[in-house]
Order: sequence, then C-alpha cells, then structure tokens
Amino acid sequence: MNEFELIRRYFAVSPCAGRAPGVALGIGDDCALLAPAAGEQLAVSTDTLVEGVHFPADCDPFQLGQRALAVAASDLAAMGATPLGFTLALTLTQALPAWLEAFARGLDRMARACALALVGGDTTRGPLSLTLSVFGRLPAGQALRRDGAQAGDLLCVGGSLGDAAGALPLVLDQRQAPPELADPLLARYWAPQPQLALGQALRGRASAALDVSDGLLADCGHLARASGVALYVERERLPLSAPLLDLLGREAALACALAGGDDYRLAFTLPAEHWPALQAAFPEARVIGRAAAGEGVHLLDADGRERQPLALGYQHFGPSRD
Amino acid sequence: MNEFELIRRYFAVSPCAGRAPGVALGIGDDCALLAPAAGEQLAVSTDTLVEGVHFPADCDPFQLGQRALAVAASDLAAMGATPLGFTLALTLTQALPAWLEAFARGLDRMARACALALVGGDTTRGPLSLTLSVFGRLPAGQALRRDGAQAGDLLCVGGSLGDAAGALPLVLDQRQAPPELADPLLARYWAPQPQLALGQALRGRASAALDVSDGLLADCGHLARASGVALYVERERLPLSAPLLDLLGREAALACALAGGDDYRLAFTLPAEHWPALQAAFPEARVIGRAAAGEGVHLLDADGRERQPLALGYQHFGPSRD
Repeated sequence: MNEFELIRRYFAVSPCAGRAPGVALGIGDDCALLAPAAGEQLAVSTDTLVEGVHFPADCDPFQLGQRALAVAASDLAAMGATPLGFTLALTLTQALPAWLEAFARGLDRMARACALALVGGDTTRGPLSLTLSVFGRLPAGQALRRDGAQAGDLLCVGGSLGDAAGALPLVLDQRQAPPELADPLLARYWAPQPQLALGQALRGRASAALDVSDGLLADCGHLARASGVALYVERERLPLSAPLLDLLGREAALACALAGGDDYRLAFTLPAEHWPALQAAFPEARVIGRAAAGEGVHLLDADGRERQPLALGYQHFGPSRD
Repeated sequence: MNEFELIRRYFAVSPCAGRAPGVALGIGDDCALLAPAAGEQLAVSTDTLVEGVHFPADCDPFQLGQRALAVAASDLAAMGATPLGFTLALTLTQALPAWLEAFARGLDRMARACALALVGGDTTRGPLSLTLSVFGRLPAGQALRRDGAQAGDLLCVGGSLGDAAGALPLVLDQRQAPPELADPLLARYWAPQPQLALGQALRGRASAALDVSDGLLADCGHLARASGVALYVERERLPLSAPLLDLLGREAALACALAGGDDYRLAFTLPAEHWPALQAAFPEARVIGRAAAGEGVHLLDADGRERQPLALGYQHFGPSRD
C-alpha cells in the first residue's frame, strides 16, 4: 500500500476533494490551506472512531464512511458553523480495494450532503480506526457555545430522539424487526444528518447549543454546567419517532431518548420570542423544557413532579464514549 | 475512564492548552475556534502514529508525546506557517495515570517549543494510536508549496540528515553505542525540532519546500514531480553530523541521509540571490544541489557523474510510511 496512490485512487478523485469555496489548497502538499473570509473564525473539531468500540467489526464500509463524517460534522452544526472541509486519518490493517471503494463512496455521499471538502489526511497501517477533523467558518463572536443559557430560556431539540439507540440492537444483530421499522431506525444510526441548517439558523438566536451524542440527559448536564443554570426536561414533550414507538413501546422509547445518545440532534436554549419563527422554519424542532436558576438536569413527569432518570444498560457503540 | 476528566486532568491544565493568540475558544465546547487575522490563511495538517508501526511498543511516553507533536508540527514548518494550535486524538487501551502524565509532559514540552496551543481533541479506547492535527497561519498567497521550484534554483536542506535513521537501531535496541554518540542521535529521533523559524524565513524567498520525512531522495522526488523540474543532489555536499559519522562511517551515514527519512529537516529550492542572507541567519542550512530542466532526482558523485541510489533495508518506524 502506498499512501499517495491510495489517497489519489479512492479519495482525491471525489468532486468533494480538493478545491472548494474557502479551500485555497487541498490534498497533496504538506498542509491544506483554508481561507476564511475577513472577520470569520474557524471552527475545528476532531472525532475518532475505533473498530469494536465505536462501530461493530466487519460493518459495511459504505455505512461507516457516511457515519464517521456525520458524527464529526455534527460538531460543526452544534457551533452554528458553515461547513468548509475535513481531513481523514485512516488506519487500516490492509488496503482492500473493495472496502476502500465502498468506504470512499459513503464518505463522499455524506461530504456532498454536508458541503464538506476533503482537504487532506493520513493513511497508516494498524488496527482499523478513523480520526476526522472538520472545519467550518463563522462570523466572529457568533458561535453557538455551551455557556450562554439563561434562566427563562426554552430548552429545545432539533428532532426525534432515541432512534439511534433503538437501532443499536438491530445493528448488532441482537434483534430482528420488519423492514418498515428497522430501515428508518438503521438509517438514523448509520447516516444521521448533521443539523447544519438548523445550527446556522440558531446563530444570533440560541443562547447555548450542543449536539446530542452522549445522551440527552448527559448532554443537558454539560450544557447546564457550562452555563451555570438548571435545565428542566419534560418527559412527555420528548419527540419520539413512530418506528421507535412501534418497535419498543413508549417507556423503552423514552429511555432511549433520555440516555441513548448517538442522535446527533441539536439541543439548545432559546429566548422564547425566537420560538415561533424557528418552529415555522424547522417543524421537527420541539420545546422539551426550560432553563431556570439553579443547577443540574431535572426530569419532570406529566404532572410536573421530578422523576429519577432511569439507569440504562444498553450496549453502546458511540463516538463520544469509552 | 471518563473522557472529560481525562482531558481536564492531564491536558487542559497545561499552560499551552486553551487560550493563546489566535485561539478564540479552546478545549471544552463542540468545536475550538481559531481566529486568523484578516488576510491570513489557515494551514492544516494531520498525522497518525500507530504503536508498533510508527513507534515501538512500550516506548517512553514522554518521548512519544514530544515526537508525535514534532512530527505533526514539521508540516507547518514546511509550509512556512506560524504555529497556532493543535488537536490530539488519543486512542488508548487503558488510561494509566503514570503513562498519561508522562505523555502529557512530553507533549507540553514540544507544544511550548513550537508555540502550539492544545485546542481540542478526542480520547477513545482501543489499540494505542495518536492522530494530531496542527494549525498555523499564513499571509494569503505566501505558503511554501511543493510546486514552485524553477530550473536554476539552489536545492538546500535545513541541517544534518540521517541522524534519525542512524538512531533507529538504538531505538529498537538492536545496537548499542556509547552515550556521547547515542544521546544526540536518540534526541534527533525522539525530539526532532520542527524548523519553524526557517520555514517562516523562507516565505517570499524559497520557490518550493517540504519537510524530509520519507527520506531525502523520496521527498526530493515529490518536490521534483510537483514542480516539473529535475533535482540534482550532490552526494558530497550532504550535511552529516559528527555522531552519525562516528557511529556508522561515511558510506552508511550517507545512506541514512539519502534514504533514511524521519529527519524533519526542511528541503527547499531557493533562487541563488537569497542564499547569502539565509545562510547568515541559519548557519546549519546547506546547499546540496540544484534544480534544472527535466524530471526526476539525480544523485551526483564528487566528480559530477550520476550514481545509482542505494536500496536500503532499514527497518522503519516513521509517520509517513505504512
């Protein structure tokens, strides 16, 4: 395997490789050159996925390519950044052409969906793992940070939660389901669509945001801590998809939504005056609670009483855990 | 092992972590935010090092931390970029505090030497490997690319070559040497100093540049091909260090210099009028040949006759191979 040939053959041919708006120099030199406009900042995030930890061994390389980039790009959505490019560090035990071709196709599909250009990378021999660094641009001072939530803000999410966790037993072949339930859930696991448009729309509106990767309650905990507020999550308001409800029933679906992770939906706090316009533009978004003075994450029942979150024993393959 | 605690405990405490000039937001949010000045571009490079492939199993974690960042930062030097920050994706089989503490110290030492701030990363469980992405800034249009060499330019290197390849048998415990020879060579292997000041000085002067990671002849081949010129390397002009000559003798030292790699010295082409000022500022730099019309890399003997490069059988642990 020759690194240069490998990259040229499978990755550099993609229309998403190399030159793109904001990319002054792509693959092939010592560094890529990114060119944000004057007054813009560059958002940078790095995610690693390891075989057997973050994705099952022998999984479909096309799906893996899609998912790896989606997971990384979701961090750009969470900051409200406009996608620019990404680097791929790919470690492989061996360079199988069929595997590489399918992986590159999956990567390319998600790269087009996210408008991210492949600008560089590294290819090495070793146990299968991938590290993707993604780059986006933002007007200075407009990033969606975690530390701006204010008491009184609405707590919102960008769409249904728990689908990826519900799909996991299907991914791992621990459970069977008819295609009309399995397919949409598997699609949410393997090809979550980073909420990039939502993130950009939240600039100048949301007071804080992140993407749900560790699970809603855990991620709300990060947001509450960074902002110095309490977050109240109303259990009955969590958006659950029809296939998830059909597959698991309401209680188990709620458990997936609260603790499952891997959804890559945005969770954000929003001054209430922005909600009507946002809901009109993003009808899948939901208010699920509110920020208040205090600390911690509090789960509320339909009657408004605080409820102890369930401890869950799902087996996870997610990029943020270990 | 909790990712957040791990990063906070060992990495985020470093004075090189988080805020630094040009870093608007460091560790702890979904993305870091880099803020190049108006008119500046951002240079980006990614390198992966895998245990047993790019560094020996059970190597000293302090040394590994130093070397991993040096290898990555050398690509910034090769573009002439001013260092800004880096991300670290660290995959570990287990989180041993003593290992992490030593690794973080080594990383921090090199980060200070290179003026690079740790701005983010990811920590995952799996077979030991590291992926570092480094970021630097450059006035638009001033990057040192590989494709600008012109016939008539001098071919130069930033300092002695072959030391890292000469050190490799010592690194692998395949050979012993007295400390006065071993120590300086091992230092060149484990803590190569990226030639960042030289790279910045070459902006607006050198016509092409890269860093020598694959071996001088191989890297000159990349430069010749990208620029569409022939490069003539004069064997007798290659700078060799005293410890390398003492350990291996002249012929074997030359072989290391030509094909050994891992030196992370800059190789560059320079219009002759810039040489006197450059040599005065960087006395270790040497002219080793010239660019001419044609193609390929040509190795010349002392009498000016072309010589066939030796094929070498060294065992390598280098970041650019696989």
